[in-house]
Amino acid sequence: MFQAKLKAETLKGVVDVVSTLIDEAKFKIGEGGIVLKAVDPAHVAMIDLSLNKDAFEQFSASEIDLGLDLDKLKEVLRLSRSGDLIEMRQDEERGRLIIMVGNITRRMNLVSTEGMSDPKVPNLTLPARITVTVDELQRGIKAAESISDHVALMANTDGFEMVSEGDTDSVSLKLPKALLVDLQCSESIRSLFPMDYFSNMIKAIPSGTNVNINLGNDLPVKLEFDIASGKGQVKYLLAPRIEND
Amino acid sequence: MFQAKLKAETLKGVVDVVSTLIDEAKFKIGEGGIVLKAVDPAHVAMIDLSLNKDAFEQFSASEIDLGLDLDKLKEVLRLSRSGDLIEMRQDEERGRLIIMVGNITRRMNLVSTEGMSDPKVPNLTLPARITVTVDELQRGIKAAESISDHVALMANTDGFEMVSEGDTDSVSLKLPKALLVDLQCSESIRSLFPMDYFSNMIKAIPSGTNVNINLGNDLPVKLEFDIASGKGQVKYLLAPRIEND
Amino acid sequence: MFQAKLKAETLKGVVDVVSTLIDEAKFKIGEGGIVLKAVDPAHVAMIDLSLNKDAFEQFSASEIDLGLDLDKLKEVLRLSRSGDLIEMRQDEERGRLIIMVGNITRRMNLVSTEGMSDPKVPNLTLPARITVTVDELQRGIKAAESISDHVALMANTDGFEMVSEGDTDSVSLKLPKALLVDLQCSESIRSLFPMDYFSNMIKAIPSGTNVNINLGNDLPVKLEFDIASGKGQVKYLLAPRIEND
Repeated sequence: MFQAKLKAETLKGVVDVVSTLIDEAKFKIGEGGIVLKAVDPAHVAMIDLSLNKDAFEQFSASEIDLGLDLDKLKEVLRLSRSGDLIEMRQDEERGRLIIMVGNITRRMNLVSTEGMSDPKVPNLTLPARITVTVDELQRGIKAAESISDHVALMANTDGFEMVSEGDTDSVSLKLPKALLVDLQCSESIRSLFPMDYFSNMIKAIPSGTNVNINLGNDLPVKLEFDIASGKGQVKYLLAPRIEND
Repeated sequence: MFQAKLKAETLKGVVDVVSTLIDEAKFKIGEGGIVLKAVDPAHVAMIDLSLNKDAFEQFSASEIDLGLDLDKLKEVLRLSRSGDLIEMRQDEERGRLIIMVGNITRRMNLVSTEGMSDPKVPNLTLPARITVTVDELQRGIKAAESISDHVALMANTDGFEMVSEGDTDSVSLKLPKALLVDLQCSESIRSLFPMDYFSNMIKAIPSGTNVNINLGNDLPVKLEFDIASGKGQVKYLLAPRIEND
Repeated sequence: MFQAKLKAETLKGVVDVVSTLIDEAKFKIGEGGIVLKAVDPAHVAMIDLSLNKDAFEQFSASEIDLGLDLDKLKEVLRLSRSGDLIEMRQDEERGRLIIMVGNITRRMNLVSTEGMSDPKVPNLTLPARITVTVDELQRGIKAAESISDHVALMANTDGFEMVSEGDTDSVSLKLPKALLVDLQCSESIRSLFPMDYFSNMIKAIPSGTNVNINLGNDLPVKLEFDIASGKGQVKYLLAPRIEND
């Protein structure tokens, strides 16, 4: 059983960060809220999202898995105006999700969750943690995208840097400690990542959000941020590219 | 003879509703204003438009038929700013229409009206009439377009419903009597229509317009609405699709 | 040596008017500012631009030629917000230009200026000079583009006219003396020009700019206007098309 009502903005926030990695998602619904863990088809990145039932205007559920096509959720979101409430209800008999926005009712078939694994989020010890407004990163990504397929994330005791090196050009975004929300770093750290994944993740995060970037030398990066005014959390994990020296 | 001056918005309203069905139009001009009747190339839909001479800032004409390319009129409209007046004059000698917007003069060849029939608008008795703000219908259409090629329009004594059924998904817009401007319906009515035609018609109607939807069981739908602040009227007729049971 | 700081808007103004004709440009930098003279690849049009050092917030340079890829400068400009300052510095050792916007640093290879000629701007005596706000011309161009590949510029003692004649349609923009900023013309003048070049030039000029149009019978047109609040000047020259009678 699943029946819930939430702000269109809240649902949009969830769909945006998840659809960056996958087209169909298994939402694990329980009494306390919703959890989603997924790996992208190329096994390069992972998302671990939780949304507390307090993020909803109304929420009642027993334990179930809901397989949803994210493009269809986007279609529904395009119908909603700022401030609209979206109502969802599982139609258990017909295996459908019923979504209501204003006077419109959309019924959609659920997606089979059989092939969808339950990835285990690895327990990484990442020595550096940089906290920064996502807008700074978004501007840096915009500058770097045309330069290279890779982006290096670096930190030391003085600040954070993001560098892309192309054949003829290079771009760097340098954020000294004073421009960061927080910096926990006692050594020099550097890892290289695929630009497309990192760019899509950063762009999916709503403007104004503070992001924790957890870094280690040639280790995956873990991005952590809140959604739904702190009533939900997202962790992105992205595998590093090994650099040829 | 034809010489007229009208607001750019008024001309835009006319061109938008007509160009939904046809590319070239025969405007029948007379002393009292302009009338246009046309059937789309596939003979699925019809438009019957009249624009009183009061809709013009200035109007003087004798009886003539003007064949116009609607894309060219759209080009002229793109030059105009809100509040601009558009002046038109027939150049009888050269078979052209001369249009003036601000300091710009566009001369365009008339289109031959020889092949353009004068369709007779059928006299239908349609038992139900629903009056509704077009914005509600536009939102419903936006929700339904990706679902199916057809849309069912339904009415009963309680309200109006628009339903699209796809293979896996369905969308319905339900407007109870309280959300309608008016409802004249004493029985259960249902007709199925091609989505593309219905969608284009609904989208061509300016936001805020009240539309009369005249419906019968498996009969054409007749949409009636005012343009030019009530100084013009449009009737759209759209043939039904026969449903297989 | 070259080191400068200027408003993003100022750099954008320069890049817009230059990139209309060429993809790569040789900026001749000196103590007093920057000069650029270039001919388009088809040798139909020429630009002669100068930007005084007063147009910069900060400027220090010795005589050098900088070959720059204008698309890369556009990328940098897309990162800047209104009011941003852009800092530039030549990296003499590595043959690069270093550009800083906010916390972002872009390093770009210089383009070889070897193949880039130093065109001599011809000394033309053009009998008519029309001064007009570019917005009027932009609206006229928008009206005329779909009509013909050519545009005729005409002037007489009464005013200025721009005419495009197609097979079935024609468009004219007529500006009587009262609508011009200034008119210096004692005879009837007419020249024909390629629409694409003239259109691109006119569109590259910022809204609100006054343009001097210098015209002669079947002679090149010379467009003159200020950039950077009068601290820079641009001259466009465009060759005429010979009319068949």
